[in-house]
Amino acid sequence: MAAEIEPAVRVTVESLRAYGVEAFERAGLPPEGAAIVTEVQLEASLRGQPTHNVGSIPGYAKRIKAGGTNARPDIRVVRESGVHALVDGDNGQGQWVSVVATRLAMDKARATGIGVVGVRNSNHFGAAGHYAWMATQERLIGLCTTNGGLVLAPTGGITPTFGNNPLGVGIPARRHHPIVLDIAMSVVAQGKIALQIAEGKPIPPGWMVDKLGRPSTNPADFAEGFGVPIAGHKGYGLTLVMETLAGLLTGAAFGWDHSRERTRNFSNLADIGHFFLAINPALFLGEDEFLDRVDRMIDEVKAGEKAEGVAEVFAPGEPEMRARAHNLREGVPILPSTYRALLAFREEWGLATELEAVATA
Amino acid sequence: MAAEIEPAVRVTVESLRAYGVEAFERAGLPPEGAAIVTEVQLEASLRGQPTHNVGSIPGYAKRIKAGGTNARPDIRVVRESGVHALVDGDNGQGQWVSVVATRLAMDKARATGIGVVGVRNSNHFGAAGHYAWMATQERLIGLCTTNGGLVLAPTGGITPTFGNNPLGVGIPARRHHPIVLDIAMSVVAQGKIALQIAEGKPIPPGWMVDKLGRPSTNPADFAEGFGVPIAGHKGYGLTLVMETLAGLLTGAAFGWDHSRERTRNFSNLADIGHFFLAINPALFLGEDEFLDRVDRMIDEVKAGEKAEGVAEVFAPGEPEMRARAHNLREGVPILPSTYRALLAFREEWGLATELEAVATA
Repeated sequence: MAAEIEPAVRVTVESLRAYGVEAFERAGLPPEGAAIVTEVQLEASLRGQPTHNVGSIPGYAKRIKAGGTNARPDIRVVRESGVHALVDGDNGQGQWVSVVATRLAMDKARATGIGVVGVRNSNHFGAAGHYAWMATQERLIGLCTTNGGLVLAPTGGITPTFGNNPLGVGIPARRHHPIVLDIAMSVVAQGKIALQIAEGKPIPPGWMVDKLGRPSTNPADFAEGFGVPIAGHKGYGLTLVMETLAGLLTGAAFGWDHSRERTRNFSNLADIGHFFLAINPALFLGEDEFLDRVDRMIDEVKAGEKAEGVAEVFAPGEPEMRARAHNLREGVPILPSTYRALLAFREEWGLATELEAVATA
Repeated sequence: MAAEIEPAVRVTVESLRAYGVEAFERAGLPPEGAAIVTEVQLEASLRGQPTHNVGSIPGYAKRIKAGGTNARPDIRVVRESGVHALVDGDNGQGQWVSVVATRLAMDKARATGIGVVGVRNSNHFGAAGHYAWMATQERLIGLCTTNGGLVLAPTGGITPTFGNNPLGVGIPARRHHPIVLDIAMSVVAQGKIALQIAEGKPIPPGWMVDKLGRPSTNPADFAEGFGVPIAGHKGYGLTLVMETLAGLLTGAAFGWDHSRERTRNFSNLADIGHFFLAINPALFLGEDEFLDRVDRMIDEVKAGEKAEGVAEVFAPGEPEMRARAHNLREGVPILPSTYRALLAFREEWGLATELEAVATA
């Protein structure tokens, strides 16, 4: 939620964008790839998302430069019909591959009403909400998921077997902001625990377990511990479904293939899989009728009685969409640890772009 | 979970089936409808599902007879393409309408690789897992959801605005039982709370809130209280997504349309919406390759290290699929309160069918 961010610095959108593009081009990406990966990370920062944002630029750039992901991938369609495609990402940056795949799913949904695109041989795609949001920009319903490094064990087990396999769902609206749900299948994303540690804050109970599956708040347990699925066996079931769609169905690596040894070692292909579904509401209803119904649902969400002490009830993604509009005007909020890391990386790589601060909290 | 059931009586499959068919035909359903509705409820009892099972037969039969649902519906396709259909259930029993819709989605998925079927003007469809399981019987991935009576409020709100909108997902396997995930978006289904009250058992904390949104374990708060979404705002987001797919997209009633006054009054159409998606794995991989990958995932789930005190780790639906095989042989377990209600209804309606008990615990 946007409210959790306490920005120390606001930076101009333009300088952040230029910073990302320069970093990624220096790492070896061509202009198209550099622009896309930057935009996905920048949008996450605009939404106030605490992880998977511009703070990932240095790490991604280093991984690309080291050859961990392919700087010049041949992102190609392996199989295709009017309603589906199977995309091989050629070990390219997950954001780049995913924007290509999302556009493909959207094209098919506009043409035939539905588009399902599976992706293999990709990498971490950043924030799932981005691709769901893309679909809403053309009045489509978008759904996406991915698998990834193992952070969740099945209920009753203590061997991590699934990623946190986030689900992104975008629902277009007319009067209101689009609905964008972006939820990890763990109580919190691993990146958020890492961020908490980086910020020197305590780890709240319920966020992680140690390597024997025992609840832990000790940062020392983070490296070998793992996450907690949402809602017990229901979250385990959901993450297994996401693994099936993103990993099994696409021919990507899955389950124990994504052991930590493998995903943390740059010399191995991550072979992450993704799944993108776009549905054109015009299949079922007149387009305006669907959008009007979404608006009415949001109206009901916001007009209902509130619990004691609650000033406003939000649709999923509404705080983020509001933050986006605000941050586009006022500059992008950057956490202190992220800002320091971006400055250090600029110095390390000798980037020309300066981050232009616009305000200090 | 099957383990939660403590059967007092086991009844033969044949006598239960005959009982359901007779009850529904006496209520006015034609043979096809009576057979389908009975089968959906019987399968839930075979899986050991504690709600949405044969215990619902008397209530359904009375509602049909009273004209609350249409005994002779014209279940028809309103719009259709190679990949989708919009079905009007004509206020028929939700199970009947949903089996028709699921078959349609499966037919399309076999032909074009994908089938999306939206349903409007239907009624409660029983257990979501049934339709997901149906897809697995033809080696398809099945996904379904429904909206319904209002039991969940948005995060921060105390006005029920969503059903518990269960999600069913079926994934076919080869060596293993198919995976069948069936989860309500509330911590527990309302029917389970009602069952707990009917069985005279205490309501565990965390299952429901009173009408002001305060946690409650008092059975007296059940009628005006509501449920708790799984995983906080994540469950709220998920139930809103299900409402969008099942209710908004299909042209069915949704949100406040489904006020309790309306859904509990037989003279109003429930106008419940459902959503069915079938995906043919052959779109992406050879069929055997996909099934082999599912088997491998289940192998990993079961082969991992176990938490202390855990004897076995299960895939979603595995205990239910095992219970089904067992109960097909040994007879269907019936809860004491359910058994009494079935006997009372038999007497009330003067049914000819006797329930044949095969064992008593």
